[in-house]
Amino acid sequence: VARVAVDLLGGDGAPAAVVDGVLLALAADPDLTVALVGPSDVAGAELAARGAPERARLHLVQASEVVGMDEDPARAVRAKRDATVRVAAALVRDGVADATVSVGSTGAALAAAVFTLGRLPGVTRPGLAVVVPAARGPLVLLDAGATVECGHDLLVQFALAGSAYAQVRLGVDRPRVGLLSIGAEAGKGDALRKAAHALLADLPIRFVGNVEAHAVPLGGHADVVVTDGFTGNVLLKGLEGTVAAVAEAAAHEGQELPALEAFAHRWDADGQGGGVLLGVDGVAVVGHGSSSPRGVASCVAAAAQAHREQLVPRVRSAMSDLVARRRAKAGMAWA
Amino acid sequence: VARVAVDLLGGDGAPAAVVDGVLLALAADPDLTVALVGPSDVAGAELAARGAPERARLHLVQASEVVGMDEDPARAVRAKRDATVRVAAALVRDGVADATVSVGSTGAALAAAVFTLGRLPGVTRPGLAVVVPAARGPLVLLDAGATVECGHDLLVQFALAGSAYAQVRLGVDRPRVGLLSIGAEAGKGDALRKAAHALLADLPIRFVGNVEAHAVPLGGHADVVVTDGFTGNVLLKGLEGTVAAVAEAAAHEGQELPALEAFAHRWDADGQGGGVLLGVDGVAVVGHGSSSPRGVASCVAAAAQAHREQLVPRVRSAMSDLVARRRAKAGMAWA
Repeated sequence: VARVAVDLLGGDGAPAAVVDGVLLALAADPDLTVALVGPSDVAGAELAARGAPERARLHLVQASEVVGMDEDPARAVRAKRDATVRVAAALVRDGVADATVSVGSTGAALAAAVFTLGRLPGVTRPGLAVVVPAARGPLVLLDAGATVECGHDLLVQFALAGSAYAQVRLGVDRPRVGLLSIGAEAGKGDALRKAAHALLADLPIRFVGNVEAHAVPLGGHADVVVTDGFTGNVLLKGLEGTVAAVAEAAAHEGQELPALEAFAHRWDADGQGGGVLLGVDGVAVVGHGSSSPRGVASCVAAAAQAHREQLVPRVRSAMSDLVARRRAKAGMAWA
Repeated sequence: VARVAVDLLGGDGAPAAVVDGVLLALAADPDLTVALVGPSDVAGAELAARGAPERARLHLVQASEVVGMDEDPARAVRAKRDATVRVAAALVRDGVADATVSVGSTGAALAAAVFTLGRLPGVTRPGLAVVVPAARGPLVLLDAGATVECGHDLLVQFALAGSAYAQVRLGVDRPRVGLLSIGAEAGKGDALRKAAHALLADLPIRFVGNVEAHAVPLGGHADVVVTDGFTGNVLLKGLEGTVAAVAEAAAHEGQELPALEAFAHRWDADGQGGGVLLGVDGVAVVGHGSSSPRGVASCVAAAAQAHREQLVPRVRSAMSDLVARRRAKAGMAWA
């Protein structure tokens, strides 16, 4: 069983796309329960418009405020006690739900998760992990944009958490973890990458060294690719834009490209199941603001899977090594 | 007339691919003269193997050392007085050639250019500018990897130099200059981007604000996209890898994709004419190490064009505004 709290008001297509997506997810998964978090009258009207579907596994949880894309997310989440993302996170904190999903502002979902669920021991800032459908098999990329200013300590956290996530999401026993840089050799990259390389090599993960950016769309070099949120976001949008550019060029020449369509389909927001915030004490999934009902459903399914496969306990365990090292370093080792 | 000094020993296919590329370039441009810089016996043997072609516009300049990909470029260039890249740059410094081309180590070409040609007034570090064949028309991206640690002052230099280069290379009168960031709004991005945004808005260029990464492969938003060398290199390799990934997926399904082939062809190293180092006192073009003869020829053609269209005087002029501001700020204004 998985109980997922979904932000009714997040995303460009809200509330209709969210409701349609939730109904799709419920139909696909008989062990799923959803709490729709938003104004109950809005939810009720949407359901009535769909012929008032059977609601055995669908609950309405009241919340009235929304965090806009133009607001400072941390400040808005702090100020708005009745914001949908905050109420959804509180359901997880209180054990009423197992996971949250929002296709609204990533910053708001992040702020709500940190503020309400808290961070796992050893975590400074959460990372946003996405699954890239690379040509030679999927891989996990993080941070995809949650934290734009990253130090090497944060890259270490992302490597540990990302490795745990790849076990859950990709089903890989010992995921290969690579550091995104501008050359395969250990010495290549900026000061941040050079500092991180030595630290990553010392972790209890399968570190495969630097990987270059072409390895992200192509795949085959690493199961987890670690980078700062600025670079990760730029790379991800660059990949999405390139797929769109190829499709545009093909359409321009009047060519039908079934393979490209299938490829682009795998790449689009709807197929990816959103991003997961790693390092908070609960499962929190955020999707593209442009998510269609199918995109919302894939986020709900990803959230349910993360809960069922013990994502948070796994990340907590992955972090414990880091916590132990810090304690030892600070002279507080219990041993 | 354009006189281009070409590094005989740079690149994976050297010396054969370099010689073939030079012969292609000479055949395509009757006003071109090339100096092949490398061991004269190697050059002589390559030419003899091709039936000793007529050499009215082809000269052999002796240089015996090469900077390897595994060496520290700055140190190696300083130590090796007879390195091909250093001898080639000296030809430009001494007025014997108008431009240099190397498809070897970018770091070595950069070090040789800075060491031998020097920087233009106002320039702290040169930027590597490449032309991206975006779907809606080409654009200039810099820095593509010359300088991985960039402050906001360097992004300002890249914007001025890149705007001058786009005039020459793209034939755009008042190029639109965008700052690569992770959101279109002025406040989006890391501290570096936020600091740079205000400075760019104050320059005598057509600054269009932040652009997101999908605008680079798609085009249409800016003629020049400015970023640090780490992010630029990651984005460029990500785009190249995505094109390769789409092609791989199509081939896997046994589909022929003429439009994709044409697109990939535009994207591959050979079509792009290499990158130009902006901010040094001379035209210096560097190409992919994997360049084919056609790739070498496109670099030589790009170098000749940059010389003919006065790239260096234009960049010098673009920098003068910056120099004047610095003088004024330092209380040394002559006015």
